Amino acid sequence: MLTVVLPKGALLPDSIRLLKAVGLDFSVFLDPANRLLQITDPTGTAKAFLVRNYDVPVYVEYGQAQLGIIGYDVLREKVPQVAHLADLGFGKCRMSVAVKQSSPYRSALDLPLYGRVASKFVHCSREYFDSLDLPVEIVPLYGSVELGPITGMSEAIVDLVATGTTLRENGLIETDVLFESTARLIAHPLSYRLNTDSLSEWIEKLRSAVAIAA
Amino acid sequence: MLTVVLPKGALLPDSIRLLKAVGLDFSVFLDPANRLLQITDPTGTAKAFLVRNYDVPVYVEYGQAQLGIIGYDVLREKVPQVAHLADLGFGKCRMSVAVKQSSPYRSALDLPLYGRVASKFVHCSREYFDSLDLPVEIVPLYGSVELGPITGMSEAIVDLVATGTTLRENGLIETDVLFESTARLIAHPLSYRLNTDSLSEWIEKLRSAVAIAA
Repeated sequence: MLTVVLPKGALLPDSIRLLKAVGLDFSVFLDPANRLLQITDPTGTAKAFLVRNYDVPVYVEYGQAQLGIIGYDVLREKVPQVAHLADLGFGKCRMSVAVKQSSPYRSALDLPLYGRVASKFVHCSREYFDSLDLPVEIVPLYGSVELGPITGMSEAIVDLVATGTTLRENGLIETDVLFESTARLIAHPLSYRLNTDSLSEWIEKLRSAVAIAA
Repeated sequence: MLTVVLPKGALLPDSIRLLKAVGLDFSVFLDPANRLLQITDPTGTAKAFLVRNYDVPVYVEYGQAQLGIIGYDVLREKVPQVAHLADLGFGKCRMSVAVKQSSPYRSALDLPLYGRVASKFVHCSREYFDSLDLPVEIVPLYGSVELGPITGMSEAIVDLVATGTTLRENGLIETDVLFESTARLIAHPLSYRLNTDSLSEWIEKLRSAVAIAA
């Protein structure tokens, strides 16, 4: 049976719409009253797990799911050993550096040497500032990264920006874009290569559905 | 001005009750409509930040907050450079190993060599299995750890258990307790030593309030 792992949160509605377009109905996951984390579609063709964003690649890496849908940002941050199959187009956002509007900084390169950058994306931040050859201290946070500059703990943040509302509400402005992100289709490399459960047919169907939607 | 950092979630109501007992009212944080992450108490004596559980020690380590309230589990997992001041008594839970009820395992030592253990508490898990001299692979997850054994990705989990309801609902049973956890009062070491903003008086008041509540 085909197994798919889906991320909780912002990417879920579009992920479920895409799977529906290829005949797999997991819309139970969208019901706020649903508590199940594992369901089989009504035709008995495929099983889906619903997990935290960051856990999606883990389930695919370990082969517990053959396919997964996840943001490019997570792939860049965790660098999991999974096959990258398709850009699904939805979930557009960007990984950006932001600073206080009232600060003198208007670019990452303006930041002071050994300044602090708060981020949930420690690996991406490290990579970016290394590429600029700018030594900074990355402060790892789990949430509300915008509090870093507000409290004075850090000069800047690196975070995902979709509409920019959170930044504006907190008096922050974007200075640099590290990369753009969208949802991606990933697969367990061995399942993909061995084509278990006609995986390649499903991947083709999903690719076609994405092409039609675009 | 005294600065305190408080954790979102389960420990918040008791933390706010304790601060109220020493004359600091941050109950605005309990209002579901509140979006502020930083407030000053009505008497203008102290400021509080509301952050994710895991971020509390970061704000204290960097001196952005002089005091913080956080679960012992987070202190054990992150080993932050903060002063541990008092056991606040509330937020009781334990860090435990759990396995599938239907599995043959009834103790961590029954687990197969090189078996897998899923956990949000990678450091605590590693430390525990090292102390048993049992080589296992720790699978780092961010949420819904109980899916590890359910999907067959891992033989066991290490997770916080309060009532045990989540374990029971998922057909899991506890086999070993790593340690008991409660909420703790922590301080920025240097602020504590220099006694900035009469920190030691506040700590004494909080200790007395805890003693009265106990």
